[in-house]
Amino acid sequence: MKISARNVIDGKVSDVEIGAVMAKVKIDVSNPTVITALISKEAVEDLNVKKGDDISAIIKSTEIMVGKK
Amino acid sequence: MKISARNVIDGKVSDVEIGAVMAKVKIDVSNPTVITALISKEAVEDLNVKKGDDISAIIKSTEIMVGKK
Amino acid sequence: MKISARNVIDGKVSDVEIGAVMAKVKIDVSNPTVITALISKEAVEDLNVKKGDDISAIIKSTEIMVGKK
Amino acid sequence: MKISARNVIDGKVSDVEIGAVMAKVKIDVSNPTVITALISKEAVEDLNVKKGDDISAIIKSTEIMVGKK
Amino acid sequence: MKISARNVIDGKVSDVEIGAVMAKVKIDVSNPTVITALISKEAVEDLNVKKGDDISAIIKSTEIMVGKK
Amino acid sequence: MKISARNVIDGKVSDVEIGAVMAKVKIDVSNPTVITALISKEAVEDLNVKKGDDISAIIKSTEIMVGKK
Repeated sequence: MKISARNVIDGKVSDVEIGAVMAKVKIDVSNPTVITALISKEAVEDLNVKKGDDISAIIKSTEIMVGKK
Repeated sequence: MKISARNVIDGKVSDVEIGAVMAKVKIDVSNPTVITALISKEAVEDLNVKKGDDISAIIKSTEIMVGKK
Repeated sequence: MKISARNVIDGKVSDVEIGAVMAKVKIDVSNPTVITALISKEAVEDLNVKKGDDISAIIKSTEIMVGKK
Repeated sequence: MKISARNVIDGKVSDVEIGAVMAKVKIDVSNPTVITALISKEAVEDLNVKKGDDISAIIKSTEIMVGKK
Repeated sequence: MKISARNVIDGKVSDVEIGAVMAKVKIDVSNPTVITALISKEAVEDLNVKKGDDISAIIKSTEIMVGKK
Repeated sequence: MKISARNVIDGKVSDVEIGAVMAKVKIDVSNPTVITALISKEAVEDLNVKKGDDISAIIKSTEIMVGKK
């Protein structure tokens, strides 16, 4: 399936932390930064997201703000 | 001001396209990808966002999904 | 690619309306309702979304509110 | 009150799971699918959301992506 | 209908600007500030939002970030 | 850094509640209302958000709906 989300950034899971209904996934993207995603615990289990996995961060363009110094 | 958004990705504006109330900003982030942000035309004008500017993409963690092959 | 978004609702495109940078896609989902998505014009063109297409509405769970009478 | 959110999908609560600050609500919508909403524990308590309740999923159109096979 | 969104801020419409598919609504909230909402043109027409209307800004808590000086 | 988010509402932290990965911050804004933000526990710790702090609620315009009686 091709999705409309314009932003798909490939990386590797560097950490997973699981709460009661939410989970935090840290994604090491190739170079400059680490991306933090807060998704459902259910999704983490369903996709079996674990440290070291190749994974993509997916972001709808309307969710992105810009900042300028 | 320090903000709670966990994801701030630095890049350079590679394109700006302006509609009636919305605007699209393409941000070239260092290496692997281009980020697309859909923000208000008002913000583009207020921050004077233009091609070549150093800019950051800012994303709240709850807005980020993950995808796994 | 399997995505973390918990909600994927299949339907058929019943209308597409294109603005300068945004586009509106109406999705007829099997039975009770029509779903309205506001996505980038770029995504509509890239996925070639047009009336009659089989399409899915994808929604991250944190974006869904509930209402009770 | 009439709200601007274009998407109101009626269903029945099929499950509620409560965490420390977040809660997960599963909504059985008439036919094809179950919708998962991640909302505040506070909202679940304030609206007294419980299994079997008639409830609506409410989604702002800018939060909906599309996927095409 | 009672909704799960935790934030309902009452105000008065001070401006409406309409694009092809999106619209911008400025809401004058009692005291300190003006709130800017970007919603569908369709919603503006359906609710007949116009300057001077009593209106509420509604925001899901997961969409709110915090900033600290 | 100047950010594109159109809505920055100043207030004071009136309560912080911390879960496993999420946290709830109540912000008392000058006059009419209290704003509830659901952000990552990580952000609360990184910004050291605590009761009595001067703080701003930051909201991207596309995340705001309107309601009309």
